[in-house]
Formats: sequence, structure tokens, C-alpha cells
Amino acid sequence: MKLYQRSLRLKARRRGFHIITSEVAQALPEIITIKAGMCQVFIQHTSASLTINENADPTVRQDFEMFFNKTVKENDPDYLHDYEGSDDMPAHLKASILSCSVMIPVSNGRLALGTWQGIYLCEHRDQGGERNLVISLWGD
Amino acid sequence: MKLYQRSLRLKARRRGFHIITSEVAQALPEIITIKAGMCQVFIQHTSASLTINENADPTVRQDFEMFFNKTVKENDPDYLHDYEGSDDMPAHLKASILSCSVMIPVSNGRLALGTWQGIYLCEHRDQGGERNLVISLWGD
Amino acid sequence: MKLYQRSLRLKARRRGFHIITSEVAQALPEIITIKAGMCQVFIQHTSASLTINENADPTVRQDFEMFFNKTVKENDPDYLHDYEGSDDMPAHLKASILSCSVMIPVSNGRLALGTWQGIYLCEHRDQGGERNLVISLWGD
Repeated sequence: MKLYQRSLRLKARRRGFHIITSEVAQALPEIITIKAGMCQVFIQHTSASLTINENADPTVRQDFEMFFNKTVKENDPDYLHDYEGSDDMPAHLKASILSCSVMIPVSNGRLALGTWQGIYLCEHRDQGGERNLVISLWGD
Repeated sequence: MKLYQRSLRLKARRRGFHIITSEVAQALPEIITIKAGMCQVFIQHTSASLTINENADPTVRQDFEMFFNKTVKENDPDYLHDYEGSDDMPAHLKASILSCSVMIPVSNGRLALGTWQGIYLCEHRDQGGERNLVISLWGD
Repeated sequence: MKLYQRSLRLKARRRGFHIITSEVAQALPEIITIKAGMCQVFIQHTSASLTINENADPTVRQDFEMFFNKTVKENDPDYLHDYEGSDDMPAHLKASILSCSVMIPVSNGRLALGTWQGIYLCEHRDQGGERNLVISLWGD
């Protein structure tokens, strides 16, 4: 079994939820040689996150942004960590609720996602800037 | 090191939280040959999810259903994605909060779960139907 | 490729969020031999959890405790599972929202965490006691 690993720098995106499935798949051309394996995508930040969800209707991503803003409030007077901007502490919380990695089986040279599944970059900051991923792939 | 991968079709279950630990373990008979390894279970859907939690008292699973229904409301007038039923957008959100995969170490031919841990299928839709898992196993 | 696996017993900690990155890294001395690989940390409990977040400012961890206590209420009269103490059912829910494992790429003999990332033990019980981790490491 072999393991491949590569960094992928994502361009800055506006706050919200963005599909990055094809960027991830293209970053590892060796995937076509894997009959059965695994792919992990890890984001090296604490105010952006990764999740897998519906890949077709953009209103789903808008509803994600609405829901998480409503559930993890900005400007809660109980926050102690408030000096990096009102979007900072909520960004940390959202990142842990959603998680900093996704892991997907690989079958016959492709990510074995369901028909409606895509990988989301969840950008929780107003000015998050570029984001760094580490993509790992292993299998036979 | 070898990697085994198999699909497992779960029968339709009612909305709620269901223990599927033994179904998963039985789907990969090769597990008994693994002294030290890993098992990942991945659900290929965006309105059902997987988590690990208490395996003994059924009221825990009922409280999960109650809590997530209270926290991720149906019929929020702010939802834009509302044409697939009032349970649809909440199902997508719950799926990302809980996650579409679990990963468990394998030791001496068995899933190295804690005494009280079991794998839950989290069915977030009223009529979710059958669900497809991909189970991957690797190790020595 | 080789896979290493070890148990790590964590001493009892008070309820809250605690950084355990160096304890985890030290538990697997073989990590320095891995050029490219993966590390998974799994907690064998259902009322404590693991996540990755900001490793520098302790107020972030205090805000995590505040936020999760506010979001997952104790003494909700709708809980059915209430006989193990008011912190018990909320602990199960928090554990599934945050997750029982983290998985980190390994590059050049080290965990490939971002500059500001650390591993948190999330102790959700008032008297959780010692906690058991299984740490797995594989790669070339």
C-alpha cells in the first residue's frame, strides 16, 4: 500500500459555504491508480472548516450560513475571547462543530461520494484569506 | 498492510437514532485477521449521518432525537431550501453537525470501542428509505 | 507501510476543554520515522470528546465551555435519560456534536497541524475521571 500527501492552497473566499470537490480531486492525480483506498482532507486553520453535504442546490449552502450564524451568535456578551473581531470566537466554535477534516473512501480511482455529496469549505471569517489543506491518499 | 472495502445496504428505518454496531462488524469478516488497524464507516447520503454514543439505554437515543429536533428547527421561515419537505433542510444541517463518517481503531480482530460505545445510524428524514454505507478496513 | 497503535490513559481533569497535543505526540515515539502518514486519536468514552482548535489563548477554551453549556442545557425537562446526573445527557450530546476522534496528517516525523491548532480533550462531566485514548499511526 502506498500513501500520497500533498498541500493545496485555496484562494481566499467570502464568508460562507463553498464546494471544493473538484479542486480536491484534481490535487491528487494518483487517485486514478487506487482501486480501493481512503482520502483525507485536513484544513490547517481554526476558523474555517470542512464538511460534506448537498452538492446541487446553492440555497442549501446559504441556509447553512444562516443556520450557523443564528446558532453561534456574534457579540455574545459572555465571550471572553473578543479582541480579534466579532466573527472570531464564533468562527472557532463553528469550526469544531463542523470539524477540520473529512475522510472519503476511494473506489476504482474515484472518491466514493454519494450522488448528492460534495466537499464544502466552510469559511467562517469575514476576511479569512487563503486557506491551506493537506490531502492524504492511501490504498492499493 | 491490506485494505478491505465493502458496501453495506441498510434497510429503511424510521426517523431517529439506531444502533448498527453489529451489522457493521459482521459486514467485514476479515476483521478477525487484523491485529492492529483501522475501520472507517461512511454514509453516502446528505440527510442521514453516523455518530458513536451510548449503546445501552434506548432513552439516550430518544433524547438525541428530541435535542436535535429542538436545536435544528423545522419550518424556520429563513430557510430558502424548503421545497423537499419540512424535514429536508434540517436533515442536511443535522448530517453535518453529526458527520457522515466514523472511524474506529481495530485491535486483536475487533473494533476497539469503549464498553459503552456503539455506532448510531442517525436517520434525519421522515421517509429516508434504504441507506448505503461504504466500510473500509486496513491494518496488519 | 506500517501501523502503530497504543493506548494512552489520561489523568482525570476538571470539566472543560484541555490541550493534550504534546501528550499525544509523546505517546508515539515512532512518529519521527514517518515521512508521510496519518495519526488518529480515539477516545473510548461517550461523555468526553476530542476536537482541534486554537492552541494559544486559554479564553478560547473557556468560551467553548460557556457556549456548549448554553447550547446543550442541563435539566431540560424533556430529557428521558436523567438518572445519572444533570451533566450526563448533555455530556452525551456534546460528545457527538464534537466527535470521539480526530485525525491528523503526519509529515516529516511530526503532526502536520497548523500553527494555531492543538488537540483538545473535551471533558463534559463534572467527575469524568481518567479517560482512555487509542492512538494509531501509519505511513511510510
